[in-house]
Amino acid sequence: MSSDSPAPGNADVRMSGFAQRTTVEAAIQWVDKSVQQLPASEVSLADAAGRVLAESITSPVNVPGFTRSMMDGYAIIASDVAGASMYNPISLQVAGEVLPGQAPSTAVTSGKVIRIMTGAAMPDGADAVIPVEQLQASDDGSQVEVHADVPPGKHVGQVGEDVSAGTTLFSAGRQLRPQDLGLLSSVGISQLAVVSQPRVRILVTGNELLPAGTPPAGQQITDANSPMLSALIERDGGIVDFPGILPDQAETIEDQLQQPADIILVAGGSSVGQEDYAPSVVRQLGELAIHGIAMRPSSPAGMGTIEDRLVFLLPGNPVSCLCAYDFFAGRAIRQLAGLPAEFPYQQCRLPLARKLVSAVGRVDYARVEIIDGQVEPLAISGASILSSTTRASGYVIVPQDSEGMPAGSEVDVWLYG
Amino acid sequence: MSSDSPAPGNADVRMSGFAQRTTVEAAIQWVDKSVQQLPASEVSLADAAGRVLAESITSPVNVPGFTRSMMDGYAIIASDVAGASMYNPISLQVAGEVLPGQAPSTAVTSGKVIRIMTGAAMPDGADAVIPVEQLQASDDGSQVEVHADVPPGKHVGQVGEDVSAGTTLFSAGRQLRPQDLGLLSSVGISQLAVVSQPRVRILVTGNELLPAGTPPAGQQITDANSPMLSALIERDGGIVDFPGILPDQAETIEDQLQQPADIILVAGGSSVGQEDYAPSVVRQLGELAIHGIAMRPSSPAGMGTIEDRLVFLLPGNPVSCLCAYDFFAGRAIRQLAGLPAEFPYQQCRLPLARKLVSAVGRVDYARVEIIDGQVEPLAISGASILSSTTRASGYVIVPQDSEGMPAGSEVDVWLYG
Repeated sequence: MSSDSPAPGNADVRMSGFAQRTTVEAAIQWVDKSVQQLPASEVSLADAAGRVLAESITSPVNVPGFTRSMMDGYAIIASDVAGASMYNPISLQVAGEVLPGQAPSTAVTSGKVIRIMTGAAMPDGADAVIPVEQLQASDDGSQVEVHADVPPGKHVGQVGEDVSAGTTLFSAGRQLRPQDLGLLSSVGISQLAVVSQPRVRILVTGNELLPAGTPPAGQQITDANSPMLSALIERDGGIVDFPGILPDQAETIEDQLQQPADIILVAGGSSVGQEDYAPSVVRQLGELAIHGIAMRPSSPAGMGTIEDRLVFLLPGNPVSCLCAYDFFAGRAIRQLAGLPAEFPYQQCRLPLARKLVSAVGRVDYARVEIIDGQVEPLAISGASILSSTTRASGYVIVPQDSEGMPAGSEVDVWLYG
Repeated sequence: MSSDSPAPGNADVRMSGFAQRTTVEAAIQWVDKSVQQLPASEVSLADAAGRVLAESITSPVNVPGFTRSMMDGYAIIASDVAGASMYNPISLQVAGEVLPGQAPSTAVTSGKVIRIMTGAAMPDGADAVIPVEQLQASDDGSQVEVHADVPPGKHVGQVGEDVSAGTTLFSAGRQLRPQDLGLLSSVGISQLAVVSQPRVRILVTGNELLPAGTPPAGQQITDANSPMLSALIERDGGIVDFPGILPDQAETIEDQLQQPADIILVAGGSSVGQEDYAPSVVRQLGELAIHGIAMRPSSPAGMGTIEDRLVFLLPGNPVSCLCAYDFFAGRAIRQLAGLPAEFPYQQCRLPLARKLVSAVGRVDYARVEIIDGQVEPLAISGASILSSTTRASGYVIVPQDSEGMPAGSEVDVWLYG
């Protein structure tokens, strides 16, 4: 059973099951209409790699700001060496030199050259540079024999040829690459307005849970979700706040849901079990917009708002938790951070090695391995089998209206690696 | 002119040009034979995302370690509800409950059920779980009417079904994904042996350079390379050590080349100009294995060793610097860090919108834009035009034996973004 409009989620569903489930499409629409990019914050250039620009950036200067040599060689007047060749070398007098960073002290006049290094300012009078490879300097350095002619402007970098003042270097929304930092540095920008990073609070509930990395014992299991979610959130540009495992108590969850955050992820205690307090607490403090989604795994996932905080209810089973994160919570975090909403995974299109079975009426998140260029659905795929996501190369999304795909059909695989 | 064997680089080439250039292929071979993965260091699970395992990891435990319910419902004896349906409900008595983390206090006997939550340990006697959706509980909770039958084992998670003790979870060399951290946590692993991060020292030389982010002024330009290289190194798993811009002085460079590091990148002062001290200093302190490479840009790049430190001479022109980094220095850093040697960029194959011109005898690194699904070579492509790499979608490598490719031919593009 599924519905195109979000289930209002007003009834207490504990121990009675979901009456109807919202479609994945409607849940994604709810996410997209509920988030907006966070405001800007200032960062220094050194901390800006991978951040998203909040504003367009215009260059205040020309780069280069002066006419410069692009080679190690000699600044010349091009017409002085017209017709020069190995068989017709032309001798010129060396009248000085100019090093990078220096202001040239002499102008070049006809018959003379000035020794110049790559990046140094061109002296007045000169209109080209002849590289060291195309001449022979005398032993005392006072003369050169030029073996080639060059057109005016050759090996000369013009003012503003890399960046001209007033050019838009990057538009708002650009995720900064290493070379972008280089270019921003070269125009003298040391502080940038970037989209703030979302503060994401992870609430992990469960009396049965031991802290991450503790050996499991007795009837207790070890929290897999907080380390996984922390890494996912950081990948998607968020800052993690994790107060530790919480007991299954309505008051604790109520208190935690009121702490400051841009987004709260509740992992576990979010379904219809009698210890699942989170849905009722969200409903009581704010709005539980969606609870129960027509998908497998992650069908008990939910989402809503408490004041200006988005809340995502992620199932405690780790595969469901990962899936609901990537479909909904990650999508929200990425958009808050100014990043593309889509799954941050590479995609490839390959044939299925055997049929992939699904059911009409729900979206399936099928873990697959790629073996010899073919897509092999993983046999063990329960919501609790986290190792299915570590063995998998990635996953295939089977749409709601599909019964699955036959062997040999081409499918899009989202690659985890 | 190029040679298949590395140029020995023994002569002082300042202001005389490169006599011959090493092929890109030979330079890559030199890198690959000169690096080996760094030794292991310990990190905590919380710091392990994206790190590379130095050793294989075997699970010390079964997950789950006990038989558990996979649903919120009632633990039953499957044969008690054989034939149950909406038209033939079967009534059973609720004999107790078990919550996650608890040891079951009662066994299930015929005619009785025990209320059970997802993840709770199965009570003795029960062999299946009937979900809440498939029954009706009486108002006082003492009875349930079951509407469906279930086979033995249904909704029961078996010991070790996610991970069985002794299984290899991950092999050495695995770059850890978010879900890998979850799985490691679930088996109780809190400390991991990962490949150490290479310490990379960036030496930027040039009297003409102003510190990163400073407005350029007069004949001075602002260092674009240290911010760009820092971001590239961090992307490739290295730790940056940048002592600030150095003057063009042999003694300073000599001192800096002897500081501790796994790799030293010298950006600028590495070609054949008279202020280019780095090649001679490397030759004097260690081995300058290669200087001058048959490629464009980056032809003045070089590489060698000083004691156990790898040294890369990167041209100061920022496009050359980026190109030489990605071809050689980045390749070394990635391998030291246990990552794949190849360019860390996605690739796509698309047709050229117009011809891409190159010259036989050198490899070309051609910046391109992708416009309407076609590959457009950028017209402005000098080694100093850093904006060509920020405007570009990526680059095409034109092999040494190619004169270029005609319009319409399919090319592989490495995507920067």
